[in-house]
Amino acid sequence: MSDLPSSISLREVGPRDGLQNEAPVPTEAKVELVNALSATGVRRIEAVSFVHPKAIPQMADATEVWAGIDRRDGVRYSALVPNLRGAQRALEAGFNEIEVVVSASETHNRKNVNRSTAESLDEISELIDVVHDAGSTVQVIVATAWGCPYEGDVPVERTVSVAHRAVRDGADGIGFGDTTGMATPGRVSRLVGEFRSAAPEMAVNLHFHNTRGTGLANVMAALQLGVDDFDASVGGLGGCPYAPGASGNVVTEDLVHMVEDMGVATGVDLEAMIEAAATAERIVGRSLPSQVLRAGPRTRTTPA
Amino acid sequence: MSDLPSSISLREVGPRDGLQNEAPVPTEAKVELVNALSATGVRRIEAVSFVHPKAIPQMADATEVWAGIDRRDGVRYSALVPNLRGAQRALEAGFNEIEVVVSASETHNRKNVNRSTAESLDEISELIDVVHDAGSTVQVIVATAWGCPYEGDVPVERTVSVAHRAVRDGADGIGFGDTTGMATPGRVSRLVGEFRSAAPEMAVNLHFHNTRGTGLANVMAALQLGVDDFDASVGGLGGCPYAPGASGNVVTEDLVHMVEDMGVATGVDLEAMIEAAATAERIVGRSLPSQVLRAGPRTRTTPA
Repeated sequence: MSDLPSSISLREVGPRDGLQNEAPVPTEAKVELVNALSATGVRRIEAVSFVHPKAIPQMADATEVWAGIDRRDGVRYSALVPNLRGAQRALEAGFNEIEVVVSASETHNRKNVNRSTAESLDEISELIDVVHDAGSTVQVIVATAWGCPYEGDVPVERTVSVAHRAVRDGADGIGFGDTTGMATPGRVSRLVGEFRSAAPEMAVNLHFHNTRGTGLANVMAALQLGVDDFDASVGGLGGCPYAPGASGNVVTEDLVHMVEDMGVATGVDLEAMIEAAATAERIVGRSLPSQVLRAGPRTRTTPA
Repeated sequence: MSDLPSSISLREVGPRDGLQNEAPVPTEAKVELVNALSATGVRRIEAVSFVHPKAIPQMADATEVWAGIDRRDGVRYSALVPNLRGAQRALEAGFNEIEVVVSASETHNRKNVNRSTAESLDEISELIDVVHDAGSTVQVIVATAWGCPYEGDVPVERTVSVAHRAVRDGADGIGFGDTTGMATPGRVSRLVGEFRSAAPEMAVNLHFHNTRGTGLANVMAALQLGVDDFDASVGGLGGCPYAPGASGNVVTEDLVHMVEDMGVATGVDLEAMIEAAATAERIVGRSLPSQVLRAGPRTRTTPA
């Protein structure tokens, strides 16, 4: 455990990946959540996505949310997009940091954006140029990186080849998304190792879901490889559209609590993040799967 | 990830550590649960505890449960006891494998058994002789091994010194219990390393709680050190008496699902364990924190 990174960069995705998998909430509630998160010390927030409102009605007010939040110095806000049209909307709204998603699984990509993975990659190549011309950056997120709810296992070679194509086309970073929580620590090590063997200098972000309980174990496996960039969702907002009642993204406060105890700095004030998780619970009106929200940090004692 | 043990020994503790933290259930339901577990392939079940019924009314029918279950060849059944009197009752009932628990935390031990840790250790020394004279074995479980809900951090040296005392007194094995989920992977590595430096040959069992979400990450850290003996609770039965709503023991089916995917054999039929978890949910009448029960194994696909 002595070779872990001394710090990691966390991207809070609760307002986007969390809320897009919850019943719709009012614009003001989204603004309140992003503002609460901006005050936790977290340095990156994926605030909205620019997707077709028919596909994901939860994100139809992306422009209003972005216009409504108090942007805090030192916090980088980003938007997720599924295609060039979404990227153009994000740029028009004033984002200068964009994530575009493509699925390694052919079936999942077709269900998501009604085109093949190859077609999405061609459009992403064009998108990267458009975003770069606007002076902004693009991270390409490879979804279903460790498996697909329709196809099952996705071969490592397939995921890595999608990512390498995006690298060749100029992506500023690569994310691997465990869309439905199919990763286990050994698979994390294999994928990161294979990807790096041909792109050793490229920034790698990992986005785990805790659908099958392996989220934080996967984070540990990645930390041991020196990965220092992770997504997480406050309170564990979200869920899994393929498994009602299952957990969604790894929980931000649980991740912060674990890694900070091992000397890995996140910049996050844990108590402030726990408060933000309580805000998230209030907004969605249901109990969220956060453990640290329920139990408190390990140092919280009970009177004897 | 290449140096993990090829197999581990799992001890199912749901009928004991799980049910003692749930509202009381009828004897027949306990028998049904143990019988369901006996059919999963798990090779060890901590079936009951012999504690004072005023302290833990949930376990008052230990003798009846033990008399009622169908004991299956190839499954080792054990009983947990807090003291010599409990061990005598367990031996009288016919158990030949006993766990005795002592807390590394002075305050927790006093709350649990109304005596100091040193007094408990003295009695355990006598208990070990009594159990050995009866031809049976004793594992000494050091509770609050990574922290105490009353005292907070428990120094590694303290936990290790309690364990080494039990080793000197003849314990057949040592367990470390993370009673309220205060362990993180780095702490697991430190404690196991410190313990082994003075007792390299002694069998070590680890008993994690997922109170703060670190349960499976802790299992991974221990596997990487070659630890091959873990406790887990079907469905995540139980909870944390100090944090209402928090998770209890690591979930058996979640643990099996993760480690088997990495080539670590458990002997457990995952589908049978998921069925046993559904039985556990029905018995306690509440939703349990199992992820794999909700989402199914990673290989379970959805029609496109």
